Amino acid sequence: MKTKVGCLPYIYPVPIVLAGANVNGNPSFTTIGDVGLMGINPPLVYISSHIQHHLNQGIQETACYSINFPTADMLPLVDYCGQVSGRDIDKGALFKVFYGDLEAAPMIETCPVNLECRVVKEFTIQHRQIFVGEVTQTHVTDHFVTQDKDRPRITNLEDLNPILYALDNCYYSIGKSIGVGYQEAGNLKDL
Amino acid sequence: MKTKVGCLPYIYPVPIVLAGANVNGNPSFTTIGDVGLMGINPPLVYISSHIQHHLNQGIQETACYSINFPTADMLPLVDYCGQVSGRDIDKGALFKVFYGDLEAAPMIETCPVNLECRVVKEFTIQHRQIFVGEVTQTHVTDHFVTQDKDRPRITNLEDLNPILYALDNCYYSIGKSIGVGYQEAGNLKDL
Repeated sequence: MKTKVGCLPYIYPVPIVLAGANVNGNPSFTTIGDVGLMGINPPLVYISSHIQHHLNQGIQETACYSINFPTADMLPLVDYCGQVSGRDIDKGALFKVFYGDLEAAPMIETCPVNLECRVVKEFTIQHRQIFVGEVTQTHVTDHFVTQDKDRPRITNLEDLNPILYALDNCYYSIGKSIGVGYQEAGNLKDL
Repeated sequence: MKTKVGCLPYIYPVPIVLAGANVNGNPSFTTIGDVGLMGINPPLVYISSHIQHHLNQGIQETACYSINFPTADMLPLVDYCGQVSGRDIDKGALFKVFYGDLEAAPMIETCPVNLECRVVKEFTIQHRQIFVGEVTQTHVTDHFVTQDKDRPRITNLEDLNPILYALDNCYYSIGKSIGVGYQEAGNLKDL
């Protein structure tokens, strides 16, 4: 039996990232859980940001942004960046910043994975600005990369140690591997 | 130091859900990782579905869909539903289905959390159809619900046992709680 609990957006869990942009020429970052994949080929992602966020101005000025994946040991700083505005605090000064091919999407060196994104679609819905981005380059900290048949591949997902967030206002770590994509259906017995 | 690994959409991890809709009046479901939050108040979510997916026709006919969160023990069935088309297989017959207020968004009884969504925006980008939905009702299996100050609240997130998916084509379980939202910044020492 089911209970109706009201119109609650229980998508669980979501990855927590630091979104970055240059605002008036200076790097700024904010903590976002409203991030996700929209497509694989070509690679499309999105971030959803409240219309009052300082970061939005920079994304609109430069037509690009970054998505940076913190590790769990960065949690206090990540939690902090979600509570203070770039209007009041120089959040760029909290991190060692680097730039890539787009030249205007600031990225965080200590985050093991960084996506450079070029805005391909933007829309406002209710109190949100949605920035759909095409990933133009993915940067990975060297020691998480190996060569696999001449193509770089990320190893050690557990070491990437991402931060998740869920419906009970708690942060979580990632758990154990429980299966391989497109191989688990073989365990079905009664179809 | 960083290595450029190409334009790869490494959003990790993502929750794996079963999206549902009535197609020609019959319930159908497909496995999706391209799902996420867009806003909290009012609650907005999205799913991204390849333009060739059978499910899309039903969503467009009914202007609604469901998002169902499977538990890890449903993994073989979840993996299977991502590999076969509703054109070839009656995927509605794989589950005990129920309907809610929208009357046309089929939901899966054995999934502990189900969202009923009304489409408020739809767009096509490259090979994807994006359906932005407003959550009109959230259904939760009774024994995960408690009353907290006269409001229903979900307990036992670990028992919900969601399926995650990550960049290495592996499924994962959720890990341990590592902190509380908006309370971890207090552990910062050097700001």
